[in-house]
Amino acid sequence: MARISPLSGFPEWLPEGRAVEHAVLETVRRTFELHGFAGIQTRAVEPLEQLLRKGETSKEVYVLRRLQAEESVDAGEDDLDHKALGLHFDLTVPFARYVLENSGRLQFPFKRYQVQSVWRGERPQEGRFREFTQADIDVVGSGALPFHFEVEVPLVMAEVFARLQQFGVPPVRIQVNNRKVAQGFYEAIGLADVEGVLRTIDKLDKIGPERVLATLQQENGASPEQAQSCLDLASISGTDGSIADRVLALGARSELLQEGLEELVTLVEAAQQRVPGTVVADLKIARGLDYYTGSVYETTLVGHEQLGSISSGGRYDSLASDGSATYPGVGMSIGVTRLVSRLLSADLVRASRSVPTAVLVAVTDEQTRADSVAIAAALRRRGIPTDVAPSAAKFGKQIRFADRRGIPFVWFPSPEGHQVKDIRNGEQVDADAQTWEPPAADLWPTVAPTV
Amino acid sequence: MARISPLSGFPEWLPEGRAVEHAVLETVRRTFELHGFAGIQTRAVEPLEQLLRKGETSKEVYVLRRLQAEESVDAGEDDLDHKALGLHFDLTVPFARYVLENSGRLQFPFKRYQVQSVWRGERPQEGRFREFTQADIDVVGSGALPFHFEVEVPLVMAEVFARLQQFGVPPVRIQVNNRKVAQGFYEAIGLADVEGVLRTIDKLDKIGPERVLATLQQENGASPEQAQSCLDLASISGTDGSIADRVLALGARSELLQEGLEELVTLVEAAQQRVPGTVVADLKIARGLDYYTGSVYETTLVGHEQLGSISSGGRYDSLASDGSATYPGVGMSIGVTRLVSRLLSADLVRASRSVPTAVLVAVTDEQTRADSVAIAAALRRRGIPTDVAPSAAKFGKQIRFADRRGIPFVWFPSPEGHQVKDIRNGEQVDADAQTWEPPAADLWPTVAPTV
Repeated sequence: MARISPLSGFPEWLPEGRAVEHAVLETVRRTFELHGFAGIQTRAVEPLEQLLRKGETSKEVYVLRRLQAEESVDAGEDDLDHKALGLHFDLTVPFARYVLENSGRLQFPFKRYQVQSVWRGERPQEGRFREFTQADIDVVGSGALPFHFEVEVPLVMAEVFARLQQFGVPPVRIQVNNRKVAQGFYEAIGLADVEGVLRTIDKLDKIGPERVLATLQQENGASPEQAQSCLDLASISGTDGSIADRVLALGARSELLQEGLEELVTLVEAAQQRVPGTVVADLKIARGLDYYTGSVYETTLVGHEQLGSISSGGRYDSLASDGSATYPGVGMSIGVTRLVSRLLSADLVRASRSVPTAVLVAVTDEQTRADSVAIAAALRRRGIPTDVAPSAAKFGKQIRFADRRGIPFVWFPSPEGHQVKDIRNGEQVDADAQTWEPPAADLWPTVAPTV
Repeated sequence: MARISPLSGFPEWLPEGRAVEHAVLETVRRTFELHGFAGIQTRAVEPLEQLLRKGETSKEVYVLRRLQAEESVDAGEDDLDHKALGLHFDLTVPFARYVLENSGRLQFPFKRYQVQSVWRGERPQEGRFREFTQADIDVVGSGALPFHFEVEVPLVMAEVFARLQQFGVPPVRIQVNNRKVAQGFYEAIGLADVEGVLRTIDKLDKIGPERVLATLQQENGASPEQAQSCLDLASISGTDGSIADRVLALGARSELLQEGLEELVTLVEAAQQRVPGTVVADLKIARGLDYYTGSVYETTLVGHEQLGSISSGGRYDSLASDGSATYPGVGMSIGVTRLVSRLLSADLVRASRSVPTAVLVAVTDEQTRADSVAIAAALRRRGIPTDVAPSAAKFGKQIRFADRRGIPFVWFPSPEGHQVKDIRNGEQVDADAQTWEPPAADLWPTVAPTV
């Protein structure tokens, strides 16, 4: 086999790292389900024409080709559906297609979650990968979708991250804004290029206020006063109704602005009551994508802000649309791989062992292996993850086998009566495979903050 | 958005179908873990050169190309690692690479399970897909791997399928053979083209004994007597030591044949004791792949034999090898998508509802939505999956909302005292969100045999 080396941007974990990822995903999934979101999975591929509808993302797409497509004698086979296929780069495009494809068989509003890999051919860097796992929730309506879902979605995410703190995941700050505020404000002060201004404001943290002011004037048609107003708006943040007062103090007025402010204040005030200190209105949050039409969300890990957002999303008035209906929605996506890679690289979280096994049954000699196997079967029937020593080596070697994997108990079978040893403290007691139980904390591997 | 139609070979499920798949996967995963297998995930892509090492599979590979690779001005970026990449077509090739890449950080024998999508550009048909999920276990040793793992692996799978019967999955028959028996026998009767004979015997069920006899003579260099001996060998099956007697009665003798027969009898006799009636030695099982060197396994769903094997695998003396070590292993893979698609299309298994939700909290009017949300939060804190009605429609409409999704309980908040209604029988009782609990059977959706 050729020399093996990792591929940049395609992260993989050792078993103990995967145990951390799995624990995170189980918590995420369970929290989504507690809130009534149903799980689905979509295929990894979409027709390229669907993936390229947003021109901006085209550079990221991986296109598929069957290796023998050119050589195939059967013209039908190499392109079964007569469509070029690419790997999905997010879970939103496939979900939109799934909703249209199944609209007659789904109940709306449809709340779904989806945990899957996505692929982007970007240059990899810290926290940015070519293959990574996302965990998305979306609520999608048929024709209409009430605003209250824009409050619900970030609060579900706040609950997910609150629960993840048990593993040692740092607290998060969810920054929210409302596209109607920005759009209403820019239009009210006479700026027509709303998209352009948003894109420039989106770079504020990266390029700083001076260059934003310059760009707004050079590229987005703003006067010096208009540019300064945009910057003033972006500087506002808070967790209560005072943010609306400060926006209105800048002088602009419009119906859209008013509506956006009311929504934004409703959101942060509800959040302040239910998850105090987690959700903050931050009017510089712009979100690059042009399909957002209401609330937008970004989430940073406190103390790891430079990692970028680990959960983002927003409201879109048209997730998808066919001849007869439009499907508005609101959703957020967790960048699971970005989060987990930081948890592991910063050694914030650890699994208690690298295998599921709680008990290793020793083997006295190969002639009595069947006895050891029968003990293991009895323990497993009672839900205790158990393995049998791979060889009838000296007991010291079998204990080391367990120790190297973090298996806490070794079982010694004997015709005179079984014993089980806690190899962490050396305590050894008589035991019966029909009744003995490990302490609950040792039954399955646990994932906990690194101490 | 363009007209939407499914892609052939890329199956997707509605939420209730996904619930069935998820229940199957959770049982599979938990059983693997009870037996000490640690979960890992590998990236979806491998260097094409790795995927093509077995020439036979090259036609199935999907090759990746970054859409903008040709246009890139940065020559380094379009091919970061200077390697063409393809999607993996099984989980064995990536696992072999993972073992080599991490050999210094893994403990051997290494027992791993892996549940992931794989891709093959084959012509789709019943039970055969272009994207599908596999659930694999393998035990891999460094340098050596004792035979007893060849007994363990199919018995773990037997336990998986025994547990799956609770959901309405039909019982299975695991057919086993041993490559040493076939090779030892063919060599002993003077046939040199062992691979060729195996490939021909592998077609027995498909083309019948007459054409097998002819092919053995025309393509594999067999005399009429040799061909008949091969067919006689393939006709033997059984669950105890008598299979060895019947093989030996055919007259051939060799050390390899003897070793293979001992292993095969050991396997079926252990299986007969531990999972009676599930595992059968069937000497026509050949398995096409040439890397098997000992036990081989195939599994059929009783009553659905024409679906083909839903779990296959075997022993290989060299899963991988680097300069310093060779890694022998034994493994089996479950074709999860093949199994689940049959469970759904034959309506064998059903989920009790299409959403996780056990309770829908009604909303009296939008002004008191916060009260309903608070009740839902209280129920969720106690682990009860709860949703809130999307709009303050008439209660009859809110009940229909629950009914259409299979949500069993609707909660009616009121300043005078809350009530909860079991909408299946109309029973309505006073309830307190701090103490009320649904019956355990209603808490989460269940997956059960279709009645």
